[in-house]
Formats: sequence, structure tokens, C-alpha cells
Amino acid sequence: MVSLKDAALLALGDELLSGIRREGNCTWMAARLHRAGWKVRGMEVLPDDTAASLAALRRWIGSVRLLVISGGLGPTHDDRTRDILAEFLGAPLVRDDATYDRMASRYCGDHREAFERSRSRQAAIPAGVESVYNPLGSALGMRFERQGTEVFSFPGVPAEYRAMADEALGARLTPEECWLSVSITGWAESLLKDRIADVLEDPLMHTSILPAANLVEVVLRGETDRIRAGEREIRERLPGDCLPAGCTTLQQAVVEAAIDRRMTVSAAESCTGGLVGAAITDVPGSSEVFPGSVICYDNRIKRQLLGVSPEILETNGAVSEACACAMAEGARRLLGADMAVSVTGVAGPGGGSAEKPVGTVWFAVSSARSGETKALLRKFAGDRAMIRERSRAKALELLWRGILGDTAWK
Amino acid sequence: MVSLKDAALLALGDELLSGIRREGNCTWMAARLHRAGWKVRGMEVLPDDTAASLAALRRWIGSVRLLVISGGLGPTHDDRTRDILAEFLGAPLVRDDATYDRMASRYCGDHREAFERSRSRQAAIPAGVESVYNPLGSALGMRFERQGTEVFSFPGVPAEYRAMADEALGARLTPEECWLSVSITGWAESLLKDRIADVLEDPLMHTSILPAANLVEVVLRGETDRIRAGEREIRERLPGDCLPAGCTTLQQAVVEAAIDRRMTVSAAESCTGGLVGAAITDVPGSSEVFPGSVICYDNRIKRQLLGVSPEILETNGAVSEACACAMAEGARRLLGADMAVSVTGVAGPGGGSAEKPVGTVWFAVSSARSGETKALLRKFAGDRAMIRERSRAKALELLWRGILGDTAWK
Repeated sequence: MVSLKDAALLALGDELLSGIRREGNCTWMAARLHRAGWKVRGMEVLPDDTAASLAALRRWIGSVRLLVISGGLGPTHDDRTRDILAEFLGAPLVRDDATYDRMASRYCGDHREAFERSRSRQAAIPAGVESVYNPLGSALGMRFERQGTEVFSFPGVPAEYRAMADEALGARLTPEECWLSVSITGWAESLLKDRIADVLEDPLMHTSILPAANLVEVVLRGETDRIRAGEREIRERLPGDCLPAGCTTLQQAVVEAAIDRRMTVSAAESCTGGLVGAAITDVPGSSEVFPGSVICYDNRIKRQLLGVSPEILETNGAVSEACACAMAEGARRLLGADMAVSVTGVAGPGGGSAEKPVGTVWFAVSSARSGETKALLRKFAGDRAMIRERSRAKALELLWRGILGDTAWK
Repeated sequence: MVSLKDAALLALGDELLSGIRREGNCTWMAARLHRAGWKVRGMEVLPDDTAASLAALRRWIGSVRLLVISGGLGPTHDDRTRDILAEFLGAPLVRDDATYDRMASRYCGDHREAFERSRSRQAAIPAGVESVYNPLGSALGMRFERQGTEVFSFPGVPAEYRAMADEALGARLTPEECWLSVSITGWAESLLKDRIADVLEDPLMHTSILPAANLVEVVLRGETDRIRAGEREIRERLPGDCLPAGCTTLQQAVVEAAIDRRMTVSAAESCTGGLVGAAITDVPGSSEVFPGSVICYDNRIKRQLLGVSPEILETNGAVSEACACAMAEGARRLLGADMAVSVTGVAGPGGGSAEKPVGTVWFAVSSARSGETKALLRKFAGDRAMIRERSRAKALELLWRGILGDTAWK
């Protein structure tokens, strides 16, 4: 029995089960399918093993409407997907030279030769199966239907998988109208759930909560009017904490707000060591608002470049309100920006003290327009990577609030 | 039939199948198990659905030695793992108040009250099952054996999962003696495979190849003498491209080499926007060698802070050999470092031209000791994120080679 919009996702590859290559194609596809109204019933990572893969195909084909397979299409003997599908279908492998020629014609010289060497494997598909053009690599994709299940097979290289899936799945991935999300910053997940419990428990909507560092995305699905009302209710109840519609990352909110207000922003990063700058410049178009910033890991740089006074460093220390303020002011002036955020803290594992344990982080935002600099202290739990990540996310929140002129920090 | 060291990994949670929360616990566990000599036969992500979960339990229990389940142990009705295990075992849920009291005693005030409110759900385990103490949260873990399979269940919160798994699995995760790896930089995976094909195909070892950005890790397993000889052979055949033993990231290699040679290093980042600094400061102890760096996204910053001449910016442009060299020299002087690397390129999606298409990136390394500055051009494929990531990894490679005095760049 096949439901209307049920799907399952498979990924093949021993390297995924040895744990160092992290499977990401299925998660990417699941997000696309979810937003297009599909229900993903399972994701499985399988070894390069014919019996295990056949067992999984037999379990899923005939029980979901859509099955998407990632990986196992390379040129080596470990890459068994086309053989496995041929065995499943009881069909011989044949070559689709026409499609392969189209792909090969993109290359010349050594690359073309390599393409030709792989032809006997990479151009092969089971007889009766449609091939899917690969715009980026040398492995053909595949598509067929059996027992009410539509099956797609794409290479595991993420860029190829995504490009081919977008093209081949087409309208199947079109987001449903009746879906929207609100991203909220500055709230712990549990406190936020209490604050908007009635909206989350509304029986006429389907809601999900997706927490990230200092950001919770609330996804609402249901009738258009209902979810719009739900979104309005959340925004009214959390004034100033909801990112604008369409914004799902803090860096995107920062860049959009700064573009909107024609402001430039900068940073002085100590314990985050570049994470804030990397996040902001992750946003296409950030060059319009972000001239650059300073990573001031050593106190000497805080002093020499940002003008933090030796007295502050000696008396208050680098992890202090005074130092955070001086860093933000220094960065704003040095970089010639309208606003700057600073981060200085103890990320660990070493460097903590009784007074300033690992996880102690000071932030400050300095504004040229108001002439004010405001600081905030946080004590984060977690290991070095978590403390740095949380610091990055908090700094971006404060910068965003600063751009909006919101000075009532929590 | 249960093999000696076979395992399977399950993760429960609708949020993992809606694709925005990416499953990571299974990959983490797979890496630990792999290095301890286990063969992971499958990883599955399941919905919060009793029937689907029971079907997976019935498939795996009795067919692998070890099954580790992530998630579904929270306090809400969506969290069904304990009920599902109780149903599988045909045992009623009972409360382990003794272990829960130990966990609750860590808290006071509001946190203690929240802990108490969750007791009726979170302290419950199926009768006859061992509970596993949670050092970080409020959900008990579980352990039991059935049909030759040892089953563990931990909360899905990554920090809790990892801490509890480390403690409860203990010796099962001890790496095997007969395992080692070599990380190699500067090689495309396919060319590297050709270069060391005979080592990789040695029938007396088990080898795997784990590629990351500008880094390929070759893992060798087998008899100690054999894999040591294999490692020696790889290192001899690729002089200067293998990171030191124990080093599995480029940033670790950079920091270790700089500590070893008592050198300080810095960076001037344009298109990577902080990724190089963030990577270096990811390494504990990096403060010893990394005073800080400059993110110079805007040409004005390249000019004002790093002293790139207006002539270079006008004539050659920001993405040019001359600009990369001036940036590296400027950063080295400004930050007072012994060596600095620079990155300047077109990350896209906009900003490309016929002469300098998206993906064009110039690097330079400037050394105070030799007085030399050397540049390199790369043209990367991929989207903005990939180009930035590849640029980060190339910059770290060049910095590492610079510290070692290796000037024969590929």
C-alpha cells in the first residue's frame, strides 16, 4: 500500500559507516521533501554490500511513493548501485552512450581521457531504466518505477546529488503553499516552548521546533489562514526576538538589517577567532555592509590594533566588560564601521580560573550613531567548540539587535 | 547469527526526518566503533512511530552484537523510546528513583523543580533493564541484552549521547592496536589513489580513504608490522605531503609545526572572511602561535590596514598575485608575526568576470625569516560555500608548508 506523499531515503557507502564521512545528502533531501509536503518515513545508510542493499530496496519499494538513493555510482568495484539495481530489476546493464557523450563533450584533454576511461562503468544503466544527466560529474543517474514506487539514484558527491535531484525531481520538490516558519533568537528552547505553548499545541496546525545555536525555528503547517494567524501570534508575543520573514540564520538577519539601514558593521573577535566574520561573509552580498574585522587573539593585538589600554588588560583582564567595550570601540574606529561587536572569553579547555571559569564570555556592541557601547556577560556550558559556537551566535544576535536600535538586551 | 563485532545504529526523531536537524550521533558513534575494530552494518533514522521502530528493533536485535539507539527519551509524548523498548521486551515501565535522585541532586531552585516535574516520564525504564546515569541531562539511558545483541539507548542531545556512550560502552570503544592513519594534503583523491595504488590494494591490509577539503586520510588496518610498513611506504612516496603522525587536520598541523619551530603565524583573509582564523583557533593552544589576523573584505581595509597600494588595486585588482602578496606582507608586519598567509578570490555567486570567473583565488605566504613572499593561483569549482571551504584548506596547507620551509608548491 503506497501513500500519496511518502518517501524514503537511502545512502550507500562503507565510508559513511566508518563514521568519518558524515551523510548529508539524505538530510538535505529530507528538508526539501518536508517543505514540499512529503512525509519521509525513514533514512538508511547501507554498506557497499549487495545483500544488504537488496534487502532495503525490497523493504521500501512498494511501500513508499518515492525512494531516493545516494551514492555507489563511482567507477570502482566498490560502487555497486547500478549492479544492485540491475539485479533487483532482473535487467542486464546496457550503455547509454548518447547521454554519456553529452557529458563527455564538456571536457577536453586529460579530463576527456579520464571520462573515456570510465565509460564502460559510468555509462552503464539497467535496461529499461531512464538515465539522468549529470551536469557536474561522470556518473549517470537513474530513474524508474516499480510497484507504485518511483526510484531515483544519484551520485553521492553532494554537488552532483543536489544538482541532479533539483533537476530530476523538479515539481515534486515545489514547497507547499501552506507552510511557514519563524526563527526566534535569544530564547532557550524550553522557555520558548512554555511561552508559546498554546500556539504549538493548536490542534489545527502541525508545528515543529528546530533549535540551533541561539536560534529556534518554529515551523507551522496547516491551512493558510491558520498558520498565518499562528505566525502573527508568535511575533506579537515575542516582539523584537523574531527574525524577519524568510530569514533563517542570524548572519542573514544581520546583513539584511544592515543593508536596510545603510549601516556598516564590523567585529573584534578573541575567543571566536574568526567565526563571526566567517558567518557574516557566508551571506552573499555581505560585502555591502561588512568592510572587515580584526581577530585579536593575543592581548598585544588588542592593545596595538584596537587601542585597549594596558591598564584594562592588567587590572580587569582580557575577559572583562572594560576590555570588551574597548575592543568594540577600537574595532569600530579602526575599520571605519557604523557599529562593531566584540567577543572575548575563555573557550577552554585551559585558561579558566575560579573567578572566570571556562565558558565565561564578554560581549560588547559599540555604535557610532548613538555613541554608546553596551556590554553583556554570558557563562556558557559545553566544550571548546560549543562555547565558541554559542559565542558566535550570541555576538550575531547582539549585533542584529544593535543595528535595529534594540538596546534592551536579555 | 551474531558476528563477533557487528553493530547497528538507530536514531529516532521526526525532526531528523524533516531534514533540518542533521543526525550526527550515529556518525560520531560509527567513527568510534570503526576505530575500535567494529563493523557497522547499518544506520537508520526512524520517525517517532512505534510500529516503524519495533520493526527496526526486530530486524537488528538478534542479527548484530551491538545496537545503539539515539533519541526519543525526552519528557514529551513524542518521545517514545522507553515505551517502544518496554513493548519490545514485554515488560512494564518502572521508575528507577535511585538513579534519578542522583541526577536531580546536582540541581537546585527552578532547575530542581523542572527535574521533579519530569520524574514520572524521565525516570521510567522497562522492568529488568539497567539504567545508565546521565551526567548532563534529565533522561536516563538504558542497557539490556536480548538474542545475543547488547542494546544501549541514550538521549539524542549530542553532549549527553557522547558522554553517556563513552561511559557506558567503555572498553567496547577502545581503539584496536592494529590501526593507524596518514593524512595527506595537496592531492586530489583520484591522483593520490593512482600514486599509492599498490599500498591500497595490499591484500594483507584493510585500507580506507577518507577525503576532506584538501586532505585525504588513508586508514590502514591489519597486522602491526604490515600497517607500519604501509605507512612508511606512503610517507616515503609522498615526501612533504603527509601530516605528522597523530595530526588529522590542517590547522592542527599548522599549530604543531609553529609551536615546534617557535614561530608565530597570521592571516589576511578576504573571500574566506575568517574561516582561516577560526580553523587555527579551533586548536587548543593556538594562542601560543597565533596573535590574530585581519579580515579585509573591503578594498579600503586592504589599503588602510594592510598597506596594499591603490595602484595594485586599480591596475591588478583585489584578486591578483600582487594584491595577495601585499596582503600577506602587510598582515605579517601589522600583526608582528613571523609568517602570514593571504587569501583573496571570487567566492560568488556574483562578482565573477570572463578574466576572473567565480572560483578564482589567489594565495600568498610571506616569511620574515626568508624575506620572501610567494603566491599561488587556484581555480576552484563549486558554490560559494565550497569555494570558501577549499580556499580555507588551501591557505592552511600553504601556511603549513611555509612554516616547514617547503617552497616547492604544487
